[in-house]
Amino acid sequence: MQLPVAHIKIKKINAGNQTEAEDNLAVEEPLEIQLAWQDGNSYVQKNISVTMRTPGQDAELAAGFLFTEGIIQQADQLQHIQSQFNKVLVTLQPGVVPKLQQAERNFYANSSCGVCGKTGIDAIKTTPAFTQQGEELTLPAGIFYGLQQAIQTKQVVFESTGGLHAASLFDSQGQCMLLREDVGRHNAVDKVIGSALLSRQLPLQQHILLLSGRAGFELIQKAVMAGIRVIAAVGAPSSLAVQMATEHDITLIGFLRADRFNVYNAAHRVICGSGEL
Amino acid sequence: MQLPVAHIKIKKINAGNQTEAEDNLAVEEPLEIQLAWQDGNSYVQKNISVTMRTPGQDAELAAGFLFTEGIIQQADQLQHIQSQFNKVLVTLQPGVVPKLQQAERNFYANSSCGVCGKTGIDAIKTTPAFTQQGEELTLPAGIFYGLQQAIQTKQVVFESTGGLHAASLFDSQGQCMLLREDVGRHNAVDKVIGSALLSRQLPLQQHILLLSGRAGFELIQKAVMAGIRVIAAVGAPSSLAVQMATEHDITLIGFLRADRFNVYNAAHRVICGSGEL
Repeated sequence: MQLPVAHIKIKKINAGNQTEAEDNLAVEEPLEIQLAWQDGNSYVQKNISVTMRTPGQDAELAAGFLFTEGIIQQADQLQHIQSQFNKVLVTLQPGVVPKLQQAERNFYANSSCGVCGKTGIDAIKTTPAFTQQGEELTLPAGIFYGLQQAIQTKQVVFESTGGLHAASLFDSQGQCMLLREDVGRHNAVDKVIGSALLSRQLPLQQHILLLSGRAGFELIQKAVMAGIRVIAAVGAPSSLAVQMATEHDITLIGFLRADRFNVYNAAHRVICGSGEL
Repeated sequence: MQLPVAHIKIKKINAGNQTEAEDNLAVEEPLEIQLAWQDGNSYVQKNISVTMRTPGQDAELAAGFLFTEGIIQQADQLQHIQSQFNKVLVTLQPGVVPKLQQAERNFYANSSCGVCGKTGIDAIKTTPAFTQQGEELTLPAGIFYGLQQAIQTKQVVFESTGGLHAASLFDSQGQCMLLREDVGRHNAVDKVIGSALLSRQLPLQQHILLLSGRAGFELIQKAVMAGIRVIAAVGAPSSLAVQMATEHDITLIGFLRADRFNVYNAAHRVICGSGEL
């Protein structure tokens, strides 16, 4: 696979000395996500979103985006995904109408946007496709210590450029199942969830989502949509991330290191020493 | 000033031991930006954007956002900015019509968006309000070494939470004039540029913009709008950031440290040792 890396000549300044050097850049390009469906007898095609992303896994990104924004609810609603250069066209199955009303609330939008007349956080909340159910998940603290190390060798573009976010999915044994990189942290999460959606793995109720950076509201919301109950971030969570985690009974870990971490909500899923927290 | 910090009780897990602790979170809340203007004899009010931001300097953020997205072109077009809780209403002077067409191209948008029918990066480019002019700017390499240290004591919310991006503006002597923090890096830049706009300091052609993280396309585009010619980032630039910098003759520095940095474009503005690069 060719890496989404651009090569460039730069100048390095070091303690007053200058040298010429080669450097690698993480590629960032706009992706236009288009949606097509049947509305009665007519065919509708709409531009849904333009996102600045790192090329690669565009179909996953589009599928994940449509799902985490509440526009579609399951993989079976997709007929096909056609991706070429910086454009993805997602065609829905006959009879499936996308829930754009819900989604438009989340977007920077013009006057026809659903935000009008609503205020505050309620306006941008999505409705999860899954209810929390099934067997409860508990994980020994030791599993979390190893997560970062497990992905280090897999972050190939980051390794080469230093310029990317990663999102990855682990099973309840701490095995890394999936890792995606992107210049946009929300895209990395959409790629992971899109991949799981397309391979019919949702809901992800027995999995851990690992975020390479900070955890903000939007990332937690996307995880909620996929039924994820345990999120671990290397960086800090925001106030709203913790609030969302609390509302949806999500275990939220921050400042994850090789031998320690903070638990911001639902610590009962983390087993520490001989007992439960 | 009260810091936008939320206090919370957390569990700390350290090498298998658990303790209860107090922690501080960077506050993240949605801000709705509304715009009002006269269209002939009628009064129009539109919701322009919802952005997840750290509360504080909401008027600056709104002004900066409207300016860097090309919706307004100068401070004199603003009549007043009314901010309350998570909403800002910006009223334009009589006779001023906002350029929403331009801006809608940049947004996640629905079918009435200007992106339709356009593809790729051209669709989301804004038109700078200033042309590069005036005296050329050259800066000794040594000025850059000190930038990070200069802001460390000013990043008060980051210091408390570890959860924020910062953008700051330096003059050509390396003096920090302005620093803004936010959970969203684009918001931090909008706050800085909005502040400079409201205090009639644009264009910022003799200044340095310092970014605490990575430099992506959108941040460079915002800087271009404000006439900034020198940008230094602590993190990596993306491919499109370098491309934008090249198109607009912007000096782009990445991986800034206390004794070294990389120059990705327009190194002629950085004077190294006894001569120019």
